[in-house]
Amino acid sequence: MITRLSNFFLRTLREDPAAAEVTSHKLLIRAGYIRPQAAGIFAWLPLGLRVKAKIETIIREEMSNAGAQEVHFPALMPREAYEATGRWEEYGDLLFRLNDRKGGDYLLAPTHEEAFTLLVKDLYSSYKDLPITLYQIQDKYRDEARPRAGLLRGREFTMKDAYSFDASDAGLDASYQAQRDAYERIFQRLGLEYAIVQADAGAMGGSRSEEFLHPTPIGEDTFVRSEGGYAANVEAFTTAIPAPIDWSDAPAATIYDSPNTPTIETLVAHTNTVLDEEVTAADTLKNVVLALTHLDGTRELVVVGIPGDREVDTKRAEVAFAPAEVEPANDGDFARHPLLVRGYIGPWSEQGAILGEESATGIRYLVDPRVSEGTRWITGANIDQKHVHSVVAGRDFAADGVVEIANVRDGDEAPDGSGPVHLARGMEIGHVFQLGRKYADALGLKVLDENGKLTTVTMGSYGIGVTRILAIIAELNNDDKGLIWPSSVAPFDVHVVAAGRDQVAFDVAADIAQQLEAARLDVLYDDRVKVSPGVKFGDAELVGVPKIVIVGRGAAEGQVELWDRATGERDALSVDEAIARLTR
Amino acid sequence: MITRLSNFFLRTLREDPAAAEVTSHKLLIRAGYIRPQAAGIFAWLPLGLRVKAKIETIIREEMSNAGAQEVHFPALMPREAYEATGRWEEYGDLLFRLNDRKGGDYLLAPTHEEAFTLLVKDLYSSYKDLPITLYQIQDKYRDEARPRAGLLRGREFTMKDAYSFDASDAGLDASYQAQRDAYERIFQRLGLEYAIVQADAGAMGGSRSEEFLHPTPIGEDTFVRSEGGYAANVEAFTTAIPAPIDWSDAPAATIYDSPNTPTIETLVAHTNTVLDEEVTAADTLKNVVLALTHLDGTRELVVVGIPGDREVDTKRAEVAFAPAEVEPANDGDFARHPLLVRGYIGPWSEQGAILGEESATGIRYLVDPRVSEGTRWITGANIDQKHVHSVVAGRDFAADGVVEIANVRDGDEAPDGSGPVHLARGMEIGHVFQLGRKYADALGLKVLDENGKLTTVTMGSYGIGVTRILAIIAELNNDDKGLIWPSSVAPFDVHVVAAGRDQVAFDVAADIAQQLEAARLDVLYDDRVKVSPGVKFGDAELVGVPKIVIVGRGAAEGQVELWDRATGERDALSVDEAIARLTR
Repeated sequence: MITRLSNFFLRTLREDPAAAEVTSHKLLIRAGYIRPQAAGIFAWLPLGLRVKAKIETIIREEMSNAGAQEVHFPALMPREAYEATGRWEEYGDLLFRLNDRKGGDYLLAPTHEEAFTLLVKDLYSSYKDLPITLYQIQDKYRDEARPRAGLLRGREFTMKDAYSFDASDAGLDASYQAQRDAYERIFQRLGLEYAIVQADAGAMGGSRSEEFLHPTPIGEDTFVRSEGGYAANVEAFTTAIPAPIDWSDAPAATIYDSPNTPTIETLVAHTNTVLDEEVTAADTLKNVVLALTHLDGTRELVVVGIPGDREVDTKRAEVAFAPAEVEPANDGDFARHPLLVRGYIGPWSEQGAILGEESATGIRYLVDPRVSEGTRWITGANIDQKHVHSVVAGRDFAADGVVEIANVRDGDEAPDGSGPVHLARGMEIGHVFQLGRKYADALGLKVLDENGKLTTVTMGSYGIGVTRILAIIAELNNDDKGLIWPSSVAPFDVHVVAAGRDQVAFDVAADIAQQLEAARLDVLYDDRVKVSPGVKFGDAELVGVPKIVIVGRGAAEGQVELWDRATGERDALSVDEAIARLTR
Repeated sequence: MITRLSNFFLRTLREDPAAAEVTSHKLLIRAGYIRPQAAGIFAWLPLGLRVKAKIETIIREEMSNAGAQEVHFPALMPREAYEATGRWEEYGDLLFRLNDRKGGDYLLAPTHEEAFTLLVKDLYSSYKDLPITLYQIQDKYRDEARPRAGLLRGREFTMKDAYSFDASDAGLDASYQAQRDAYERIFQRLGLEYAIVQADAGAMGGSRSEEFLHPTPIGEDTFVRSEGGYAANVEAFTTAIPAPIDWSDAPAATIYDSPNTPTIETLVAHTNTVLDEEVTAADTLKNVVLALTHLDGTRELVVVGIPGDREVDTKRAEVAFAPAEVEPANDGDFARHPLLVRGYIGPWSEQGAILGEESATGIRYLVDPRVSEGTRWITGANIDQKHVHSVVAGRDFAADGVVEIANVRDGDEAPDGSGPVHLARGMEIGHVFQLGRKYADALGLKVLDENGKLTTVTMGSYGIGVTRILAIIAELNNDDKGLIWPSSVAPFDVHVVAAGRDQVAFDVAADIAQQLEAARLDVLYDDRVKVSPGVKFGDAELVGVPKIVIVGRGAAEGQVELWDRATGERDALSVDEAIARLTR
């Protein structure tokens, strides 16, 4: 059926909506694809629904090709299963929770690992039933603290989530690979460039985890790549632990006066002056005091030692300490721990260990992997206005553990030896996880193996944000006039504009629309009579259908223009030529 | 793609699920279409999702034919709009309410009148923009007190809800008719017999309202039909008010002793003995004391006078007094009103009116339409053990109003003079409303008319429960072996069963499946190797695909059986004949 603009539910807006921050958000609202309902919650208008349906169709086809079968869970789920896996608490404020009339606890599911696990447990009992991969395309809810950027970080969003179930690790590898391959095909069909990077599994638990990132300077994720093929989200980047250094020739640790040097910069300048050395920030050991809030509400101080030329990367710190929440220690924390002398903190003192093993403070001391055995450092002496040099790791102090919270820099060595890495930014467009047995263990999903013994099933979890991808495609495909959809997901294949004043233009345009429709193309026909060609062209550019046919002055002579929205090229053609080009 | 049972996500169950009450609920679970998640909340398995998608496609096609355009709202909606129309309160416990992390009030929408009204207000401003009809197919939530009968009354359900917007009453009539016609086509395509009956608009407000009921003895709705074409839900049935009767010759009201006659039955027996008359229950006036709880929480007593041969119909009473809640008066109510002598209540006493105009009690007195001017009654005397006869309506008492809470009976006259009505039972499968200007008024939806003046838009609301219809179709199409889907919504067109032990049966079956698939049929192929033919046939009958091809012993000779699930007929045919029959 031809969609006629004269009665299509569409009003384009001239002005950018006030609250919209990013281009996709502005354009999707202005061009009549979505309307905001509440913070991070949107209604889908006919144009938006068409694009969404096309993306979903591509995903469904590739899921089916990968052997995944579609099911559908409700958004409203009872608490029990999420309680069993600990996520009822772990998700914190991100979860929309509610009660029914009988007081029962429910949630709006942010993801459905538990439900799928229980479904398979419910119906399957033997290794012969496996492998199976199930998926759904479903509306999910997360009560984001700062919903922003329109559909890019909403509180309601449509997601394709798939879950694989296998009796063996090798089976999980195969199921994981099948989904990974399907994701590659999906993003190729959507015309979305992607990098597959190692990722942190986060709240999902589990082992192997990769993200599909679309590389773009406006992405909110940072990732690294080496020439040799290593790629990882910075949250998942790991630093190789250096080989131990022999410290037998190292001088003894020596305290020196360092007035007014609470920062690395002042310390380095002072030290080079008074010690007559050429030290750099990399020679200093910065000790950062952090406060962790654990799930049970308890607060714990930890000190992390990192090379002085590195900063704490907040996201890496969040991942390193999850599910605890991390923040810098506050004045109260320092007041309660007078042994920690602010600006002059270090692991060692003449009286013995201040931090680390057998320390006087009882505070856990964790270090960056670079603070490895035998390395020598300039660091705080735990005395106001004093530092100490030649403090040797393993000799003068022993950390309680290693932790990765230091920032990753261009030129850092990839952990697999594939050379230095380069930093880039990207937007997450998909995520594949090997969950392993975490959920199956928590919920008791076991099957009988070849020998008739119960074995715990191993799982994978695979997500694509449908509405997020739609926004990313919009974010990447536009100009100052409006949207420019790739043909794979465009709401219509062709936009026919009757641009003349005479009836003949309308007759010819209607005829073209009909012929294109007969050739199974989706046609939007601008048949509005009291609207100027200028306004019609503006709307066509804003809406962003990739091919536009302008039927104007030449209509009587059978001449039309074929306008390519992406390149801006306009070709004068006969009606037949135009139709031939569009339908071939 | 051919769906192979060997790896299809399906486990049929031999036993009926414990909690299932109705056939559709039992069979849809046993045959692997749905799985319960919580009371009235279900997950959709691959088979169920296929049937649901086919129903949705039929609905979408007919909505499109009727000129309706699809949009999609979130389930999670902010409180404000529902507050403005009063429904935030009116819906009571039926509403799932929740807070976000900032304490904002939200609900899971039970229906979306407000949202559609605001959307049109948001984008449209002129009568020229109208008419427009928008719809969505969307998951809705209602916290039913007693979710039951599986999908027939769930707490989550998929609904097609459409809303029309017009500048004039005539426009609304046309939009309403277009949806009504579309509903007729939808139910015809679904193979669902229906009666269109007048309905009460209930919480929706508005004027004209019709229900599509599927007539069935197990339906939970009661409706009436006359030979002359009148049809109404009993809740919407109205009684014609009789013409006034001249009371000039009526004897005076006279009190008489009637010991131990608190019921109509005992009263009639006693009266016929002591007064030597031939009265029946229809000559008595029964006065029922009801307690209303209004939305603001206040409790009000009302007395309703109905002919003694009628009972109170609870549903009609609910509708008559909505949005107030109704219950019988309790002991405390009677204790507070000593003038109401239980078992002997009447509107009149020798001291004057007890109920009705200028009554001593101050309680509202409402009467059935049959208690009309000049009618004479035997009723309570408001004195213990005494009744009164020849109490004349309009002479001895005047009611405060008329109300319809008496039950409707076979043989009652249709209000349009089309003859006596007959009672029948049915299941609601669709509902069309003329909302009028209620929502547009509450939310300020106005457009400029031809004269440049603001006029309030008039609206219609049109609903079909997608998942409910699926359950009704299942409820109507089954036998003791399982489901029997009509071909329009069957999960597959053909179920091919490889029933032999030899490879040749599998080869032939696979070939048939392929040929049918090539002819664009949806094929389920039972290729399981270690499953007996008996189990395969049982599964085929339970799952209920309308056409089954059995490839067994005759496979080597090119002979198969074509099994019609509905009639049970099995025809021995050559492979080519079978394919020809299935594809023609």
